[in-house]
Amino acid sequence: MPQGVPTTVQGKSTAAFGLALRQWTAGSSIAVFQFVKSAKWRVGEETALRALGDLHRDTGQGGPVEWHKMGEGWSWSRKQGSEEDHAAAAREGWAEIRRRLEASAHDFYVLDEFTYPLKWGWIDVDEVVAVLRDRPGHQHVVVTGRDAPPALVDAADLVTEMTKIKHPMDAGQKGQKGIEW
Amino acid sequence: MPQGVPTTVQGKSTAAFGLALRQWTAGSSIAVFQFVKSAKWRVGEETALRALGDLHRDTGQGGPVEWHKMGEGWSWSRKQGSEEDHAAAAREGWAEIRRRLEASAHDFYVLDEFTYPLKWGWIDVDEVVAVLRDRPGHQHVVVTGRDAPPALVDAADLVTEMTKIKHPMDAGQKGQKGIEW
Repeated sequence: MPQGVPTTVQGKSTAAFGLALRQWTAGSSIAVFQFVKSAKWRVGEETALRALGDLHRDTGQGGPVEWHKMGEGWSWSRKQGSEEDHAAAAREGWAEIRRRLEASAHDFYVLDEFTYPLKWGWIDVDEVVAVLRDRPGHQHVVVTGRDAPPALVDAADLVTEMTKIKHPMDAGQKGQKGIEW
Repeated sequence: MPQGVPTTVQGKSTAAFGLALRQWTAGSSIAVFQFVKSAKWRVGEETALRALGDLHRDTGQGGPVEWHKMGEGWSWSRKQGSEEDHAAAAREGWAEIRRRLEASAHDFYVLDEFTYPLKWGWIDVDEVVAVLRDRPGHQHVVVTGRDAPPALVDAADLVTEMTKIKHPMDAGQKGQKGIEW
């Protein structure tokens, strides 16, 4: 891994999408890979980031944005829409990310909720660590999700954790639109 | 304060701007008030959020975005550019936020680094807590910054803290463009 280009592991995803705003402004090529089943997740972030990507395409401002979802079948896969085998889908997602990392396809990657297929043993952690460690160029990778495997934490440059001190749920209130927690 | 509309206090700002993406998609009126001296701070987030605000103005997609900076003189103030008294400038910023909260001017407020003028005694914490508690409607307020005064933490619905586990600085590496930490 190149010196000073961090791999970040975060317990919560919101900060990753905050970082994406900076990356967009800097003209970075951004790619999000969403390792969650429900396509409803992150729809707010997806819509806004795609709007920024469209703005780049139309005006040249900022950088390009790609957003890929496992839940509705990866866009590059032939198994559209009816993917039943989540482990196989997750492995297919990782294989594509590996190809892109090895080809230096993007500047900023968000592997959203990627800790779970690692935790569940669907994807080999040692392979992920090796690919991240040996990736060429200055590609910045952010992995989100809880319970990151120790080998991934050891390999990362930066690991943060969001600590909840108080939460509206504790007081019996319902979650709000636009509220992460 | 209306039931279920959180006041959020966060140690780091990145997550607040991640939340702003969701709010924009939901069509919320967004206002950011930056309580920092240097106008260079958050330029990546500002550029991207302003681009989304322009997109709303031009196409109707998403919501409107306002971004106000103390460092170069608040846009509504007559003391443009040559503000030397930071305490007075911070109080002027808070007075405007109070007016807007009481008028339900926006849906989503980011008071960026607002904990510092509170910590330094420039702005009265009890007044802030009272205004936040009694604000009408469904306005969501996020306060960022470290060392939030206990009275603010007590009044907030949600308080999170970002815990650094590993940081590239620890290994003697320099900070990177687009990296929050």
